[in-house]
Amino acid sequence: MHNLLLKNVRPLGGATTDMLVRDGVIVEIGSIAEQQGVAVEDGGNAIVWPGLIDAHTHLDKTNWGMAWHENNREAVLRSRIDYERENRIAIGLDPHRQSMRHAIGLAANGASHIRSHVDIDTTHGLTLVEGVLETREKLAGIIDIELVAFPQSGVMVMPGTVELLDEALANGCTVLGGIDPCGIDRDPKGQLDVLFQLALKHGVDVDIHLHEAGELGAFTMELIFERVRANGMQGRFGISHAFALGMNDYLRVGKLIEEIAELDIAILTTGAPSATVPSVKRLREAGVRVGAGCDGIRDTWGPWGQPDMMDRARIIGMKNAVRSDIDLRHMLELVSQGGADVMRLDGYGVAVGDKADFTLLAGETVAHAVVETTPRPAVIKAGRVIARNGTCIVDMP
Amino acid sequence: MHNLLLKNVRPLGGATTDMLVRDGVIVEIGSIAEQQGVAVEDGGNAIVWPGLIDAHTHLDKTNWGMAWHENNREAVLRSRIDYERENRIAIGLDPHRQSMRHAIGLAANGASHIRSHVDIDTTHGLTLVEGVLETREKLAGIIDIELVAFPQSGVMVMPGTVELLDEALANGCTVLGGIDPCGIDRDPKGQLDVLFQLALKHGVDVDIHLHEAGELGAFTMELIFERVRANGMQGRFGISHAFALGMNDYLRVGKLIEEIAELDIAILTTGAPSATVPSVKRLREAGVRVGAGCDGIRDTWGPWGQPDMMDRARIIGMKNAVRSDIDLRHMLELVSQGGADVMRLDGYGVAVGDKADFTLLAGETVAHAVVETTPRPAVIKAGRVIARNGTCIVDMP
Repeated sequence: MHNLLLKNVRPLGGATTDMLVRDGVIVEIGSIAEQQGVAVEDGGNAIVWPGLIDAHTHLDKTNWGMAWHENNREAVLRSRIDYERENRIAIGLDPHRQSMRHAIGLAANGASHIRSHVDIDTTHGLTLVEGVLETREKLAGIIDIELVAFPQSGVMVMPGTVELLDEALANGCTVLGGIDPCGIDRDPKGQLDVLFQLALKHGVDVDIHLHEAGELGAFTMELIFERVRANGMQGRFGISHAFALGMNDYLRVGKLIEEIAELDIAILTTGAPSATVPSVKRLREAGVRVGAGCDGIRDTWGPWGQPDMMDRARIIGMKNAVRSDIDLRHMLELVSQGGADVMRLDGYGVAVGDKADFTLLAGETVAHAVVETTPRPAVIKAGRVIARNGTCIVDMP
Repeated sequence: MHNLLLKNVRPLGGATTDMLVRDGVIVEIGSIAEQQGVAVEDGGNAIVWPGLIDAHTHLDKTNWGMAWHENNREAVLRSRIDYERENRIAIGLDPHRQSMRHAIGLAANGASHIRSHVDIDTTHGLTLVEGVLETREKLAGIIDIELVAFPQSGVMVMPGTVELLDEALANGCTVLGGIDPCGIDRDPKGQLDVLFQLALKHGVDVDIHLHEAGELGAFTMELIFERVRANGMQGRFGISHAFALGMNDYLRVGKLIEEIAELDIAILTTGAPSATVPSVKRLREAGVRVGAGCDGIRDTWGPWGQPDMMDRARIIGMKNAVRSDIDLRHMLELVSQGGADVMRLDGYGVAVGDKADFTLLAGETVAHAVVETTPRPAVIKAGRVIARNGTCIVDMP
């Protein structure tokens, strides 16, 4: 925990002021003189915004920094899952080294927190989790990492996976994942019953991947709603992707969103440009907690993406037909406060008493900052400057 | 026209070699020694690719480099058109200065050719065209600019516009534009008959904006097909946006594409992330000429976009669900050869005898170059290095 006097910054795009941090907490905002033993950083009139949050990514998957991975395989979910599981070690996807690269990239671009799904399967057991846990430890004070025990290859379809998820939740994973109970697992009742049982046993939240589109995804959502209600899991369930909410049926989607809001289920979006994605505006209007994430970046699944939540804000904004300054601000809130709402972070913000996790943003206004592609002037974690102009104080391995 | 020895480059991503340019034309490819009076550029083993082509943009619209333009107006096409027409001069959209900024940005990022629609309306007459023509003249040897006489505010709905289009085609515009004959102009027969009449009179191609989606756009396309056939305009008509081709009716879209291919109509796409866009893969398979463009960047319409065709290749690729190396290469061809096909450019390519308009690309492979966001190492126009690392030898005014 560090002390810092941040001079000449504009909190949330407001008037220029100074901020004083002691022991990693904001203690004063106003015109503040330099003080003994307190490092000074001049913000150069930049906007100061709470640390960005990647609330849906896969730290164990990227081939960032490795030789280019040629990919002319078919674009079928199941075959991509199998290819990755069978080849990841052989092609050099060391889970610790690659997660370090990915997480350092996110920190360099302004993120303070990550929720990472990490593959758990009967081929690798918990070794991928162990690699990411090592990264979490090494990057303590740089960026916070939350691990989701993620059965990428399926649960019921891969006997032995349930036991591994159980073990992972006792060893470092604090959220339980899941994946397409119909599309991938072919047994929606089976997978969902297991997930709720494990979540209740360990007292953890659930965050399930739901790529299932249209009526299939809506069906799975209904099964989820029934179980959230029956098990008293209101406020503790998240649905990632939720492509079914992008289907072209206004009333049907409205009913689903109504239940999502009532059960306080969180939605996590990546704004996948080629998919049917939930309308972030409609979810916001319904009072749903919505976070956002980069998802996989440059991995065996696909070549796109940057370890940069501002880049993601742009992708989500363009996909959601955002044009106005008001809506641009909403995109920035999505990749910051939205993620904090989903992850239930304490002391998140830029008010006195909040934790000193910030990023500076270049831009005349908040809207301008969202479309601007220049690096973040500086990133501060727990009161310490951990990155400047896109370069983190920790080198990528 | 310049001489240049380009050492250590990989034409189209192939093996490393050298290229010799004399008087702006490629005269030799192979291992070539330095020569008297010929400038030498070391390509550092970068990929060399023909100059990128922005085949659909609006040089007269951007507020790039100006103070941030706050925009909380409603997102209705007609009201955006009227706002821009009524306020563009007052808010500082000087057509010459702003088109210089936009075009220099494109050149700095590897473009060699631009097709720009330029607004013609009864408020401004031809003054916006004149501003862009001045830019075209000043940037001769840096980037080539083709002007489309574009009736942004409508044709039939704005009496006096037809005469201005006629005048523009006699004074520097070499392509005739049009816009939503139903949606904007409310008189599809009226506008289309006028467009064909003017095009035949001046012997120019047509490139019409068609935002009309679904069946409305399909109807307008049918009116276009009839007139292309009746007037012998095969190969000389282009449809920009063509959102109707993104509608969810496989057979209906197939019939439209069949006619588009038969009549050799070109399609220009911007990959608009929030719209229904044509499938570039399906058009390619049907043998349709397809170009791509940045469209408006940071203007009174919306905040998005960069003056960078590699950024546009990424946007189109993500929207079109591109993942494989083969399809990534197609995205790069779309923003280069695709535009050349639409604009019917002579001597376009990187073979002996072609014009020396190139860009270097950073990347191990062509696919890697498409997803990489680093600046172009160097851009060459007519055998002269006109930009390095994203900075053009001509400063933005």
